[in-house]
Amino acid sequence: MSNQTRRDFISNTGKVAIAGSTGIFATNNFTGTMAKSMFIHHVYFWLKNPSGETDRQKLIEGLQKLSKVKTIKSFHIGKPADTNRDVIDTSYSISWMLIFDDKAAEESYQTDPIHLNFVETCKDLWQKVVVYDSVDI
Amino acid sequence: MSNQTRRDFISNTGKVAIAGSTGIFATNNFTGTMAKSMFIHHVYFWLKNPSGETDRQKLIEGLQKLSKVKTIKSFHIGKPADTNRDVIDTSYSISWMLIFDDKAAEESYQTDPIHLNFVETCKDLWQKVVVYDSVDI
Repeated sequence: MSNQTRRDFISNTGKVAIAGSTGIFATNNFTGTMAKSMFIHHVYFWLKNPSGETDRQKLIEGLQKLSKVKTIKSFHIGKPADTNRDVIDTSYSISWMLIFDDKAAEESYQTDPIHLNFVETCKDLWQKVVVYDSVDI
Repeated sequence: MSNQTRRDFISNTGKVAIAGSTGIFATNNFTGTMAKSMFIHHVYFWLKNPSGETDRQKLIEGLQKLSKVKTIKSFHIGKPADTNRDVIDTSYSISWMLIFDDKAAEESYQTDPIHLNFVETCKDLWQKVVVYDSVDI
């Protein structure tokens, strides 16, 4: 990437924007190719058997396979941090955060055979799923 | 960044890992300096006056100032996407997604004067806040 291109990424905060001027996704510590927009698909899973390590591992392995869907730009598989202020929901089992370029990429993910297979294989593991889809302001 | 360093980021999915082998945060379209771990702090705000553009803009401007906290590695300010499956919560007003290197960086953010000023300045704008803190599995 040229210095000129790289300079284009510098935001007012001095962080490096990777989501374009319409979006705000910035970082201090890397440069990257510019994304025109961002679509964040954040899913929280509550396992039927949250204390069962086997079910947790099955879901994690399912998500690792699911991460290979081509339209996924970025992903993170997480668990609740050990923070506990009253506004924090720590009751979920697994966090699955995906970043797509746009809604079309997320819609393609929803119908991707890898995603359909994940749902079929793992749907009996969770009792509840909550999804928040966010786009650039 | 050297090619050797860059190669170190390639994950099994062919995506570029930016959260280290213990975490999973990968992307297809940029290379970056490696983070040892990730702490995702995702906050959803419900405005008292969700139809009021003035309050929405005040919150967005407050978050833009808040983004200057030094320990924030990456951030995104979002709004609900126009998706509407039954598992999707589209009722919130603004999404505030932060990535920190670790819990210590997030704790520092909580007590940063910029954050304390944001809460003091903007706390009357929202009726509800839900936070999900996630760390690498």
